[in-house]
Amino acid sequence: MLINQAFFEKLANAAAAESLPRFRQFNEIDNKYTVGFDPVTEADRAAERAIRAVIGEEFPDHGILGEEYGAHNTDQSHVWVIDPIDGTRAFISGLPVWGTLVGLTIDGDAKAGMMSQPFTGELYFSDGKGSYLSHGSAPLRTLKTRDTTALSEATVFTTTPSLFKNEKYEGFKRLQSQARLTRYGVDCYAFAMLASGFADVVIETGLQPYDIVALIPIIEQAGGVITQIDGGPAEKGGDIIAAATPELHKIAIATYLG
Amino acid sequence: MLINQAFFEKLANAAAAESLPRFRQFNEIDNKYTVGFDPVTEADRAAERAIRAVIGEEFPDHGILGEEYGAHNTDQSHVWVIDPIDGTRAFISGLPVWGTLVGLTIDGDAKAGMMSQPFTGELYFSDGKGSYLSHGSAPLRTLKTRDTTALSEATVFTTTPSLFKNEKYEGFKRLQSQARLTRYGVDCYAFAMLASGFADVVIETGLQPYDIVALIPIIEQAGGVITQIDGGPAEKGGDIIAAATPELHKIAIATYLG
Repeated sequence: MLINQAFFEKLANAAAAESLPRFRQFNEIDNKYTVGFDPVTEADRAAERAIRAVIGEEFPDHGILGEEYGAHNTDQSHVWVIDPIDGTRAFISGLPVWGTLVGLTIDGDAKAGMMSQPFTGELYFSDGKGSYLSHGSAPLRTLKTRDTTALSEATVFTTTPSLFKNEKYEGFKRLQSQARLTRYGVDCYAFAMLASGFADVVIETGLQPYDIVALIPIIEQAGGVITQIDGGPAEKGGDIIAAATPELHKIAIATYLG
Repeated sequence: MLINQAFFEKLANAAAAESLPRFRQFNEIDNKYTVGFDPVTEADRAAERAIRAVIGEEFPDHGILGEEYGAHNTDQSHVWVIDPIDGTRAFISGLPVWGTLVGLTIDGDAKAGMMSQPFTGELYFSDGKGSYLSHGSAPLRTLKTRDTTALSEATVFTTTPSLFKNEKYEGFKRLQSQARLTRYGVDCYAFAMLASGFADVVIETGLQPYDIVALIPIIEQAGGVITQIDGGPAEKGGDIIAAATPELHKIAIATYLG
C-alpha cells in the first residue's frame, strides 16, 4: 500500500476505534460520565498498539517510535513516529481538540504525516505531495497557510504560556504583545489550524519528537515553515516555532529572542 | 410550543444555518480558506436574526435581549437572552469550541437555556427540569456535574488569564496554583464541560448577561452552582464563578478572594 489518503484513513480508523469509546466515557449504570486519568492512559496504549499493527502489516521493515511503546527498528531509513493521543489534558477535560499523530521520517526528515480528531471526524494529512483535510462527506480540501507576513496581523497559538520559564517567558510575552490575537490550549490542533490558514504562528516549548514529527509535513506542504526556535530541525522536538510564511517565521523568532 | 428539546433544536438549527456556512469559509475560486473578522460579524448578526424570528413566531409576547440587536420588550416577565456566537475568537481561529447561546429568564431568573456547537453537532440544553446533551444519533444524555469538593482535585477553566487584572490576577493565580489542572481558551464550551462532569470550576471576568444567562440553568440543573464572585446573581454577568458542587464553589471563591 502506498502512503496516501487511504492508508492514513486506515491508521485514523484503527486509532479511533480505541480512543473514541474512551473519550467522555458514559457509565450506563450510574447514568453519569466517568472521567479521570485512567481512560486516557488506556486509550493512549490501545490506540498506539492499533497503529503499530497497521504499520507493521503494511511496512514490516520500517522502524517505529511511539510515545507509549518506545523504539522498534529505528535504525531503518523509514521510521514512523506516533503520538496516539496528543493533548491528553484536552481529552480528560472533554474538549475535542486532541489528536492522533502519525508521521513518517525518511533518513530523519519528516516526509508524510497525519493528525486525526475522531470526535469531529477530521483527518489532516500530508502524503508527501500536498496537505489535505478529509472531513466526512465534504470534498477533500487542499490546505494552504495564510500569506501573513506582519506579526501585528498574526494569530499566535500556544498550549500554555506558563510552560515558558524565565527568559523564555519574556520572549513569549514579547511575541504575544506584538501579535493581533493569542489563543491558548489546543496542542496539535493549533498546527492543523496553521496549515489550514486560520492561525499564523504556533510556538511550543519542550516538545518530544512524537509531538511534532507528524505535523511537520502537513505544515511544510501547506506553505508554512517549522523549525526549532534556534533554527534546528523540528524533527528533534524541543522549542518549536511554526509560521504561515518564511517572512513571518523570521520575524517571530527575532521577536521571541529579543 | 413548549420550551423543550424540540424547541431548542429549532433554535439551534436556525442559528446553525447562518453560522456554520461562515465557519472556515472555503473560497472555491482561489481554493483557499478565507478568514478575517467579517465572516464572524455576518454570522453573528444573521444567526441572531434567525433566533429572534423563531422566538417571535412561538412567543410573540416575550421580550428579547441579544448581543447584536439589543433589547426588545424586556419589561415582560419572560425575556430571551441571546449570544449568537459566543467565542468569536475561537470562531475566527477555526476552533470548534464556540457556541450559540439562548436562555430564558422569568422575572430575572434564568430558567431554561441552550448552547449549541453546530460543527460538532452538540446541543446542551436545560428545559427547566434537567440538563441534557443531544448529539446526533447518540442517546440523549442527562448531564450531571462531578462530585469534586477539593480544589486539589479540580480542573479549572478560564478563557484567558490575562483578562484578570491586578488583585483579580493574583486571585486567579492563587486558584490556579491550588488546582489539579488549568485549561484556557474555550469560552462557553467550558461551562458545558462543567455541566457534563469534565471540569470542576469555571471562572470568568467581565461577562455580559448574554454570555452567561443561557448557561446558568444548564449548570444548576446538572447539580452545579454559578454566581457572581461576590455571591450576586450570575444573570447580571460581571465576574462569574461556576463549580461542580456547593462545597467547591465556596472553597474556590474563598481561595480567589484570598
